Amino acid sequence: MISKNDIKEIRALGQKKFRDERGLFVVEGEKLVEEALRSGFDVVAHYRIEDIGEEAMARISQLTHPSPALALVRQRAPMPFTIGPDELVLALDGVRDPGNLGTILRIADWFGIRQVLASEDTVELYNPKVVQATMGAIFRVRMHYCDLPSTLRFPVKPGMTENRSSQASGGIPVYGTFLEGDNIYSTPLTKGGIIVMGSEAHGVSAEVAAVVNRKLFIPPYPADAHTSESLNVAVATAITCAEFRRRSV
Amino acid sequence: MISKNDIKEIRALGQKKFRDERGLFVVEGEKLVEEALRSGFDVVAHYRIEDIGEEAMARISQLTHPSPALALVRQRAPMPFTIGPDELVLALDGVRDPGNLGTILRIADWFGIRQVLASEDTVELYNPKVVQATMGAIFRVRMHYCDLPSTLRFPVKPGMTENRSSQASGGIPVYGTFLEGDNIYSTPLTKGGIIVMGSEAHGVSAEVAAVVNRKLFIPPYPADAHTSESLNVAVATAITCAEFRRRSV
Repeated sequence: MISKNDIKEIRALGQKKFRDERGLFVVEGEKLVEEALRSGFDVVAHYRIEDIGEEAMARISQLTHPSPALALVRQRAPMPFTIGPDELVLALDGVRDPGNLGTILRIADWFGIRQVLASEDTVELYNPKVVQATMGAIFRVRMHYCDLPSTLRFPVKPGMTENRSSQASGGIPVYGTFLEGDNIYSTPLTKGGIIVMGSEAHGVSAEVAAVVNRKLFIPPYPADAHTSESLNVAVATAITCAEFRRRSV
Repeated sequence: MISKNDIKEIRALGQKKFRDERGLFVVEGEKLVEEALRSGFDVVAHYRIEDIGEEAMARISQLTHPSPALALVRQRAPMPFTIGPDELVLALDGVRDPGNLGTILRIADWFGIRQVLASEDTVELYNPKVVQATMGAIFRVRMHYCDLPSTLRFPVKPGMTENRSSQASGGIPVYGTFLEGDNIYSTPLTKGGIIVMGSEAHGVSAEVAAVVNRKLFIPPYPADAHTSESLNVAVATAITCAEFRRRSV
């Protein structure tokens, strides 16, 4: 059973304002709810259609076709970002589309990237469309929303007490894809570092681009193809991450 | 100006049934309409917001935020599929999500893939969400809807008069990504061939898998990571196409 008040509370979590206030988010689908329960996340409640009935599930669900299971999960407390030796990290500069963010977290998960930095104007992690699109990667990849230019300028390595190193980015390579970048396939890539990906509409902002010290380019085929096009941000992320990982095995 | 009847006709093109009947599709957005006009496609009419007014544009538009330009474009007549020497072709087995199909065509365009085969249950090319998601690639990449297993079994090479070769797939390598496939990075890849990608929910169907003669796998990182996850179909397409093209330059 589920009370009217609980239904109202869960429905309210469809809005960012209430998610922020309550510190909760909604997970839907048998597989995702199961993953939530097995993850280190705090599942504060979960509902099954055989217990609460179809009508109640349809009311609390944010999906067009409600699934048999829904869970309320506590948002993780933010923690400071530190980067380990040889660790590969993604940084998202204004990614707005929930499907893209979800897909990017799924890519990160596949390629063993455990931390993703994001500018404050990146779409919210707990947006229901993001949560669903991650297919469970949300439980394995940690996102840090931050002031991206300053975080990239002075990333903190574990054990460091002072986050102002003598050189920008503290010697950590900061990569990004740009039309004027170097062919990714003929450029040396370090095992670790930070890979910046820009927004769907505007690419990497000037402020963030200023901190990128290794500009890369994914070549079209043939290499001299006159294409005015670009690749979708999730697609560019996938190709870039795959290439970093291909090189470091 | 635009007549009431034209508005009605254009609105009807939001439905597949009418698109099929009329042999037309709708293109929206300044950039896309411009590309349509420059392409070899037959633009039967186009409308600009300064000519027809905001109200009429809002009525004919299928976008949440109508753009300043909309065009009616004639669908291309189907043509028989033939594969050239060293030509790389994609084959989609039941891709259902319009955003995925659009993104895949954009990937094909970037990597110089000019032809995409698709099973009959793949989402329709002229679905407005597909058209918009292609970002113009729809004008440069040709799709062939077909019975996929039989087309893959007996692809026609240019100049061939008989499409039944002595061996399945006529000696053309047919690749596909499978969990039990060989690591794509340590497997020889030919310059040309056909790359099969499966549906979002079910992967490659058994019938199509039977025609795949080179099974590939995109390794996670680390390679022995116990991930039960898979990559999104557009993401897997991107990584696979990028690797084929990286090897053949």
